[in-house]
Amino acid sequence: ELADKLADTHPADLAAALAEFSPAHQWQLLTQCPLARQAEIFVYLPLEQQVQLAHSISRARFTPLIRQMSSDERADLFNKFSDEQKQALLPALAQAERDDILSLSSYSEGTAGAIMSSDYAMLSPHLTVSEAIEVLRHEAPDKETIYLSYVVDEKRALIGALSLRELILAPASALVDDVMKHDPIQVTADSSQEEVAALIARYDLLAIPVVNQQGQLVGIVTHDDAMDVAAAEATEDFHKTATIGKLEGSVKDAKISLLYRKRVVWLVVLVFGNIFSGAGLALFEQVISQHIALLFFLPLLIASSGNAGAQSGTLMVRALATGDVKLRDWGKMLGKEVLIASLLGLTMAAAVSGLGFLRGGADISVVVAATMLLVVMIGSLIGLSLPFLLSRFGMDPATASGPLITSIADVAGVVIYFSIASWYLELVL
Amino acid sequence: ELADKLADTHPADLAAALAEFSPAHQWQLLTQCPLARQAEIFVYLPLEQQVQLAHSISRARFTPLIRQMSSDERADLFNKFSDEQKQALLPALAQAERDDILSLSSYSEGTAGAIMSSDYAMLSPHLTVSEAIEVLRHEAPDKETIYLSYVVDEKRALIGALSLRELILAPASALVDDVMKHDPIQVTADSSQEEVAALIARYDLLAIPVVNQQGQLVGIVTHDDAMDVAAAEATEDFHKTATIGKLEGSVKDAKISLLYRKRVVWLVVLVFGNIFSGAGLALFEQVISQHIALLFFLPLLIASSGNAGAQSGTLMVRALATGDVKLRDWGKMLGKEVLIASLLGLTMAAAVSGLGFLRGGADISVVVAATMLLVVMIGSLIGLSLPFLLSRFGMDPATASGPLITSIADVAGVVIYFSIASWYLELVL
Ligand SMILES: [Mg+2]
Ligand SMILES: [Mg+2]
Ligand SMILES: [Mg+2]
Ligand SMILES: [Mg+2]
Ligand SMILES: [Mg+2]
Ligand SMILES: [Mg+2]
Ligand SMILES: [Mg+2]
Ligand SMILES: [Mg+2]
Ligand SMILES: [Mg+2]
Ligand SMILES: [Mg+2]
Ligand SMILES: [Mg+2]
Ligand SMILES: [Mg+2]
Ligand SMILES: [Mg+2]
Repeated sequence: ELADKLADTHPADLAAALAEFSPAHQWQLLTQCPLARQAEIFVYLPLEQQVQLAHSISRARFTPLIRQMSSDERADLFNKFSDEQKQALLPALAQAERDDILSLSSYSEGTAGAIMSSDYAMLSPHLTVSEAIEVLRHEAPDKETIYLSYVVDEKRALIGALSLRELILAPASALVDDVMKHDPIQVTADSSQEEVAALIARYDLLAIPVVNQQGQLVGIVTHDDAMDVAAAEATEDFHKTATIGKLEGSVKDAKISLLYRKRVVWLVVLVFGNIFSGAGLALFEQVISQHIALLFFLPLLIASSGNAGAQSGTLMVRALATGDVKLRDWGKMLGKEVLIASLLGLTMAAAVSGLGFLRGGADISVVVAATMLLVVMIGSLIGLSLPFLLSRFGMDPATASGPLITSIADVAGVVIYFSIASWYLELVL
Repeated sequence: ELADKLADTHPADLAAALAEFSPAHQWQLLTQCPLARQAEIFVYLPLEQQVQLAHSISRARFTPLIRQMSSDERADLFNKFSDEQKQALLPALAQAERDDILSLSSYSEGTAGAIMSSDYAMLSPHLTVSEAIEVLRHEAPDKETIYLSYVVDEKRALIGALSLRELILAPASALVDDVMKHDPIQVTADSSQEEVAALIARYDLLAIPVVNQQGQLVGIVTHDDAMDVAAAEATEDFHKTATIGKLEGSVKDAKISLLYRKRVVWLVVLVFGNIFSGAGLALFEQVISQHIALLFFLPLLIASSGNAGAQSGTLMVRALATGDVKLRDWGKMLGKEVLIASLLGLTMAAAVSGLGFLRGGADISVVVAATMLLVVMIGSLIGLSLPFLLSRFGMDPATASGPLITSIADVAGVVIYFSIASWYLELVL
């Protein structure tokens, strides 16, 4: 029947179905379910809809729901509230919940603290295995996960970690202290969320414990949130490499004014960058007028330089982001790139020399081929080096966008092409 | 002491430390550990090193290790073996292991089957909860996870799923059938790995069951492998949007010849694309000769068009990959883009009109500003539409690379600029 079907449907799907309705209807449908289920569904709604829904009902009706929400999602929602809403909500909560919300929402965005949950399972090292299992069974309904528990000393300092699998396999009378892994992989609350996601991926963790500066356990970040962070960071880099500023949330639902603002900055900056290419062309007006046929090859020469640069740049931006390549590998990568770029340049030179010959004769063919070899090499080396340079000076390597590399390569391409052309054509003609 | 320290060190870190040694030394160090631990460390070595290590020792010594490996990693390794190695290994294994390896390694790369593990926990619906927990306790050492178990009927058809948390909280005498979730979220073995990772992310799953065409359970994909898949697919798209072909594994360690091959194809293709821009310039040689000052603005006009196009293209490539935008949203997105591109075009036109006036007077200023508005709009709309078009015709939207969009925008830019210039300058001069 329907009730069974609804109970077996994943809250993410129910939330997606709800998303189409008005806040009033959403609330009406939600309240058909038990409160715990309501909270499960609610957290899968987009954050803006959660805020809307919270606005649309009375505080008295909303308070029970927010008390049921998982601590990390609750803090995210709280951060979106206006100051008045925050002040209205807090007195309605119990002391512990109030402290939890205030503490979790105090971490700056992009840190481990901002994505962690405070609903972790905590054990004392002096418990026996069977006592520990009893504790976990008791706490199971309220914890983000009971499959990993964290062992703390009397000062709440993190001293060990233990999986439920290990507990189940250990002798019932053994002490947690003897079964646990010491010094578990952990992060501090101010670590970047990107680093947290990278550690969870590297070590295949279900969750990672988060400690404060004193080494006390303050939260955990779970695998599902780490996966979202990794995706969001990849999206950010995707956008950056195409000169789009940081966007939160859906592109589909983003306001026009927001998308405009995120796109216009670099477009305008690059216009001024491209003035140098124009100035380069102006510098060679005379050669160009005399050999107007040279213009035919201009687009493909400078585009090839920029394209080769975008390739090496993107390879490095992504490799630096995934940790495949480190800052210290610059020398090694540069050495390899010299060889690769030479091969690419030679191939491209061969490809255009025929074209040059057909279109402009032997002399043009030589100029075009020599330029191609040079600009592909220079473009590639600029593209490779720029992410390292940015990183070296504390900037995000993803700022080495395709368009930025292309703009630099364009200037170099214009100058190289017409320098070679003026020199060689004067020589032979 | 050292033994304790080694036991508490994560196998990923031990593997990373091992990776620096020769195969002979690696083997020597590995065999200091118990066999199960050896296998744990071994699977964290890069696949090429696993193959090398397997080559470097006798079959008799390698067989116990491969029997201990997790089923998914083992099948990946097996796929890298030569036919002779495969034939040499198989008879040394028990029938069940042989069947498992042959079956897991038979799925094509990029599918759920190719990343799934066959070490899943399976329950009968007729067990009681306490019997089920006993089964899981018994099987715990050999399973990928016991936190999720899958319920199958007598034909091995998947009929339900159950978390260990649910089992622990259920009454000991209840039947699995009554406690399990029916119709769990599942994939077929031939689903794309990208889709599998997306489902695990959407539903925050620890693992997802994989069934064959008959609905029988054949494996599970776990969250850690899904996270790796999501990262690899993002990397693939990153590379594609910069015209780099699909690379397996590390860029740092990739052979020069491989990187050359993956980069040269599109570079050469785009040269031929850029011939059209050259031909466009050749078409307008006369106007250009007469108004050589127009050249100054050529780079910034066509670059702006390409940059705006790379922005909208990248936004759509990523949004289609994450599922934020669907193919059916094309119309909606196009409508928004017309507005955004107009705003961007107007801003850019304003930015260059001053420059045009300073450099070439009022007439040039008008031509340059009008061109800018038009080319930014056209570039943006091409960039936005190309990923949808490719997707519509069954191609990967990520093929809409920045360089491809830029090349198309360049041709459009050249033609539009000099058409407006010839028309307007003839009119006014
Ligand atoms: Mg948060
Ligand atoms: Mg991993
Ligand atoms: Mg969470
Ligand atoms: Mg989440
Ligand atoms: Mg970031
Ligand atoms: Mg980043
Ligand atoms: Mg260009
Ligand atoms: Mg595989
Ligand atoms: Mg998720
Ligand atoms: Mg695995
Ligand atoms: Mg793995
Ligand atoms: Mg793919
Ligand atoms: Mg893809």
